[in-house]
Amino acid sequence: MPLAPADHAFVQRLSALLPDDTLRPAEARHREEPRGRWTSTAEWIALPRSTEEVSTIVRTCAETGVGIIPLGGGTGLVGGQLKPDGPAPLIVSLERMSAIRSVHPQENAAVVQAGAILADVQSAAADVDRLFPLSLASEGSARIGGLLGTNAGGINTLRYGNARDQVLGLEAVLPDGSVWHGLKRLRKDNTGYDLRHLLIGTEGTLGIITAASLKLAPRPAATGTALLTVPSPDAALTLLALARGQLGETISAFELMHRTGFDFLAEKLPDLRQPWDTPPEWSVLMDIGLGRGADPAEALETLFAAAHEADLVTDGIVAQSLAQSEALWTLREHMSEANRLVGAVSSHDISVPLGAIPEFISRAGPALARLGDWRINCFGHAGDGNLHYNVFPVPGRTKADHVDQRDAIKTCVHDLVHELGGSVSAEHGIGRLKVDDLERYGDPAKLAAMRTIKSALDPKGIMNPGAVLRG
Amino acid sequence: MPLAPADHAFVQRLSALLPDDTLRPAEARHREEPRGRWTSTAEWIALPRSTEEVSTIVRTCAETGVGIIPLGGGTGLVGGQLKPDGPAPLIVSLERMSAIRSVHPQENAAVVQAGAILADVQSAAADVDRLFPLSLASEGSARIGGLLGTNAGGINTLRYGNARDQVLGLEAVLPDGSVWHGLKRLRKDNTGYDLRHLLIGTEGTLGIITAASLKLAPRPAATGTALLTVPSPDAALTLLALARGQLGETISAFELMHRTGFDFLAEKLPDLRQPWDTPPEWSVLMDIGLGRGADPAEALETLFAAAHEADLVTDGIVAQSLAQSEALWTLREHMSEANRLVGAVSSHDISVPLGAIPEFISRAGPALARLGDWRINCFGHAGDGNLHYNVFPVPGRTKADHVDQRDAIKTCVHDLVHELGGSVSAEHGIGRLKVDDLERYGDPAKLAAMRTIKSALDPKGIMNPGAVLRG
Repeated sequence: MPLAPADHAFVQRLSALLPDDTLRPAEARHREEPRGRWTSTAEWIALPRSTEEVSTIVRTCAETGVGIIPLGGGTGLVGGQLKPDGPAPLIVSLERMSAIRSVHPQENAAVVQAGAILADVQSAAADVDRLFPLSLASEGSARIGGLLGTNAGGINTLRYGNARDQVLGLEAVLPDGSVWHGLKRLRKDNTGYDLRHLLIGTEGTLGIITAASLKLAPRPAATGTALLTVPSPDAALTLLALARGQLGETISAFELMHRTGFDFLAEKLPDLRQPWDTPPEWSVLMDIGLGRGADPAEALETLFAAAHEADLVTDGIVAQSLAQSEALWTLREHMSEANRLVGAVSSHDISVPLGAIPEFISRAGPALARLGDWRINCFGHAGDGNLHYNVFPVPGRTKADHVDQRDAIKTCVHDLVHELGGSVSAEHGIGRLKVDDLERYGDPAKLAAMRTIKSALDPKGIMNPGAVLRG
Repeated sequence: MPLAPADHAFVQRLSALLPDDTLRPAEARHREEPRGRWTSTAEWIALPRSTEEVSTIVRTCAETGVGIIPLGGGTGLVGGQLKPDGPAPLIVSLERMSAIRSVHPQENAAVVQAGAILADVQSAAADVDRLFPLSLASEGSARIGGLLGTNAGGINTLRYGNARDQVLGLEAVLPDGSVWHGLKRLRKDNTGYDLRHLLIGTEGTLGIITAASLKLAPRPAATGTALLTVPSPDAALTLLALARGQLGETISAFELMHRTGFDFLAEKLPDLRQPWDTPPEWSVLMDIGLGRGADPAEALETLFAAAHEADLVTDGIVAQSLAQSEALWTLREHMSEANRLVGAVSSHDISVPLGAIPEFISRAGPALARLGDWRINCFGHAGDGNLHYNVFPVPGRTKADHVDQRDAIKTCVHDLVHELGGSVSAEHGIGRLKVDDLERYGDPAKLAAMRTIKSALDPKGIMNPGAVLRG
């Protein structure tokens, strides 16, 4: 049965059940996404103040067959936060439910509402000398509900895991409007199926997360940064294994960068000072965080000596101050902006098994060369096998010149990733952008199970219709 | 519709589809569980050699409506590994599928079949200087499939997480016989619902795990152990927070022990040398594992000095050798045996939020005293909020004298755990022992979602019928 629109009659019916000013006409910012690919058909947004109000909204939508688009910070990159076609859905934003409910330093835990902004959760943890390790470029606007709905990744995944690994418990409104009160702060709880992990990463298609119990981590007493020149991606991976042998879990970031990234920085952001005249073909930026009494710079220099001896690094800089560390990270953090200024023909958020990174890199370039001439910027969270593999036009041409090759490039990259046992969406999710990819590359038994679960829990298909699974 | 029995006709039909000697009469060891509470009604066991054979078995059971009991090492403590009533099910053991398929030291990963024994996986990791951190008393016989099916816990959870946290990917046969090929070795993969976490911990009620990609960890270069006397459980938790501040994630075990445990050791295992004449009321046994160049004994002595200064510890021993460390752990490891020899009236595998441990301990004793006179041995993985809270008769009486009080004791303990936001099954799962508890204490919306998922994926209810959810 097709969904019903969130029209005037529906809005009147729902408004009668909610406090004044809960429903409003949607603004432009609620109907867009960062890449400007799509605009939402939604006309109304609900801004509930409590879990009970979310429950009322979902129950009414279930009764009337109106679709719901759960909206967090709206920073997603795959169109999961809007519906560009079909009957107008109701947007449900949790921006009014943004409280940090409680912080438990002795337990290393915090309980927050799903509308809380990531940076605010980070600050609340820092206030009690703890770390909430989830960290990514959009942390100033991304909200916890969206971050968990999409199982966000980011910089610190190597040490602390993905968003799902930060969660002790959830509260959520299920597609029939019932409320699952699962906000326990337990490290061990084997009482039945793990709904928490089932909901996380389903992009709002099985319910709306309204609150979360989160793990906090101890704050490393001292951190250190090194920028190391490596002879090859394979050497980078062997360096990582060596570093983990020496430093255990204390490595919080291990970013592989190709020369192209630095060339783009020089071209588009020439004011950023680079630590070399000619960037090396491959380099690694790594961060470590150690306990009290340890000296990160010394540990990194010990690592450098061993790695140099083993021909795994040829040159390098160990930051001797926080300012120097920040200067090195500034380069990495501006790479996305430089990329945007150059203008990619096609960008790929992919992962492969760590051991397959060298083969992926050595095969992807020649495969793409058969489709044309490109500049390739390959960089990313190599410690997680997660590369941002972005394809750019050669100087003198623009991405507009290659619009008709975009699909062929994407398929070329994704086919190779799939062949190597990788993922065509490492961090960003499926949303609406990658529904076709999921159908092409997904395991058939898994897809069938997903559809069965979706139909059983959301028989009318009201929750984020068309995201992840075709509506 | 009731299930059909795995009778002679069924066995003939299934045998015709499988190699000789795949089906056999079940032996006594396949039909028992460690606590001797139940005996299985099963008469036949299938011993497949491949995932395809598992698929054939499950598909045939789905067609005929015959129940399946997936069997790992058979070490579970809640009766999930047998069906004591109703039509005879077919036992499916993966003991012939026990290969370590591949080990990837550079990636810190390994791929194993589900029948692999935990100790063999630990050895395969150690052979390449890596650690597979899952560790528990039954590791010499527990198999990976059962450990993941039950989301096993154990000693190292504080540092490395539960069984589910060790898994990168799974291969599994779903209740219709289809095979999910999900053995990816990826750290980041956001392509659809996380079937991996859905299957883990469902105790075989949604499918049979046939293989797993597992995470390995770097092996700590140097480990250290301390046995510390603490003035109270609250001091123990503040000590843990202090220790995590100083030592970060390097604390791999933090076991709280009450004097009763040492009294039982002295009574039942007098040859075990204890490090004191009179055991303290509360003590903590902690382990740390550090990177190269660090000195664990020195780090523990620094911690001891700070904790002593803050009145969090009153006395303590820092092991100065591996032998001394092992001698301390021997005490902890023999506590279960001493408990068995004394004979508990009722044992409880519970968890509460870390901050609620002191309140739980201070309220549970007086609440139980209203039911009679007891000796209580409270010990366990305090770093995870997971306590084994066991109730024993006073000297001169035996557990047989209190059989009729068992339920009242259990309810008293579980009601308090529930009130404090805890779990009545921290590590061991639901199996058949705790189906009533799940119904009593489980969140109604969660239970409804579990039943919906179970019915949708396993409409005939053939997978481990009666475990977790009432059949």
